[in-house]
Amino acid sequence: MAQRAVVLSSGGIDSTTCIGIAIDRFGAENVATVSFYYGQKHDKELECAKRIAKYYGLPHKVIDISGTGIYDCSGCVLLKQSNKDVPEGAYIDQIDRDPNGMVSTYVPFRNGLILSAVSALALSLYPNDEIWIYLGNHADDVAGNAYADCSPEFTEAMQDAIFFGTYGKVHVASPLVHLTKAQVVKRGLDLKVPYELTWSCYKGGDKPCGKCGTCIDRAKAFEINGVKDPAIKEE
Amino acid sequence: MAQRAVVLSSGGIDSTTCIGIAIDRFGAENVATVSFYYGQKHDKELECAKRIAKYYGLPHKVIDISGTGIYDCSGCVLLKQSNKDVPEGAYIDQIDRDPNGMVSTYVPFRNGLILSAVSALALSLYPNDEIWIYLGNHADDVAGNAYADCSPEFTEAMQDAIFFGTYGKVHVASPLVHLTKAQVVKRGLDLKVPYELTWSCYKGGDKPCGKCGTCIDRAKAFEINGVKDPAIKEE
Repeated sequence: MAQRAVVLSSGGIDSTTCIGIAIDRFGAENVATVSFYYGQKHDKELECAKRIAKYYGLPHKVIDISGTGIYDCSGCVLLKQSNKDVPEGAYIDQIDRDPNGMVSTYVPFRNGLILSAVSALALSLYPNDEIWIYLGNHADDVAGNAYADCSPEFTEAMQDAIFFGTYGKVHVASPLVHLTKAQVVKRGLDLKVPYELTWSCYKGGDKPCGKCGTCIDRAKAFEINGVKDPAIKEE
Repeated sequence: MAQRAVVLSSGGIDSTTCIGIAIDRFGAENVATVSFYYGQKHDKELECAKRIAKYYGLPHKVIDISGTGIYDCSGCVLLKQSNKDVPEGAYIDQIDRDPNGMVSTYVPFRNGLILSAVSALALSLYPNDEIWIYLGNHADDVAGNAYADCSPEFTEAMQDAIFFGTYGKVHVASPLVHLTKAQVVKRGLDLKVPYELTWSCYKGGDKPCGKCGTCIDRAKAFEINGVKDPAIKEE
């Protein structure tokens, strides 16, 4: 029974670091990447994910769930149907929560949905293999309980559900779950991850806005490591 | 914060019993039903699910994931792309497992995928409410470890994952998980569930085949309760 990894790739810092970690563990010949299109404004990330897969010579598949209607009624500001702007400032300072504590950039149970979908896909593709699904959630994602579907509690329960629900054939690996973004970047720099190809900004512009939560956290993570962000071109 | 239920309806005995249970608990005005089309041969179940929703006056939505490609490579015999016949005989006797123990009618991680998708949908539709998702898995589904994604271990882990991943707003209810099919029918008869509208057969014919696992288990469940199956018309 072969062992292989499928990495959920959003074209950003965290998932690209996971690709580096998965290749380090399983060898590039046993790693594939999958991205999801669910109606996000920042669909530029799909192009980045494709380029990163090409850089490493990995298969890359985009699963488009935008036609299923699952998120048609969601008010999440990350989705194209939302007229509201993506908020600026670090996540931890974001106070635009609804009365139930959901931040405006939370896509309802997105990580549960994409982990389930990629488990179903991977087990369909590789029914005879043992499979590790990599998710790049990290500690800063849950600072202030921002993203419920990035928490260690969610991750552990999902690991069990996928393990038990697939006859023990599919595992979830979340190697960054206890790392800060700065520690993630440190790990990736050690693995020579091509951060110059990554995209983090939540706004769908030509260049990173520098003001949204992901832009701010990304800049800080490179700064802490004393490194210039290789994706930022000098004007 | 209103409380409401969304029942995963496949038009069969188990999920229709769940509809009866959910209405009994929350009132029909707070219950909706959702069905999935994932390329199954027995898509007749979707018509039945629609008719059952109409009988109770409930909203009913079909989520079509067949265009996402998730199951395009699956060899599961329930899917339209499979040329293999659905096996005959009770589940417990089915020996056509692959070397990893998967039965040929197992759709890879289907219950995890549909629970995640309906959680995402329900939280998008009802962001201000507390939501119970009903899944009709029962004890006979896991006899002989037939369906990994029906087991109590899977169900409990999925309950936790969905609870933690939705800020505690979405719960999974699986009221039949420890009941046999005969006990499910007993519960449904007490609740006057319209079993005459249900469909169980895995083959896509005009009439139930009477020979596949679901047909056999269904007949036995009514027999144990000393009741004629109201869906079987005399010729």
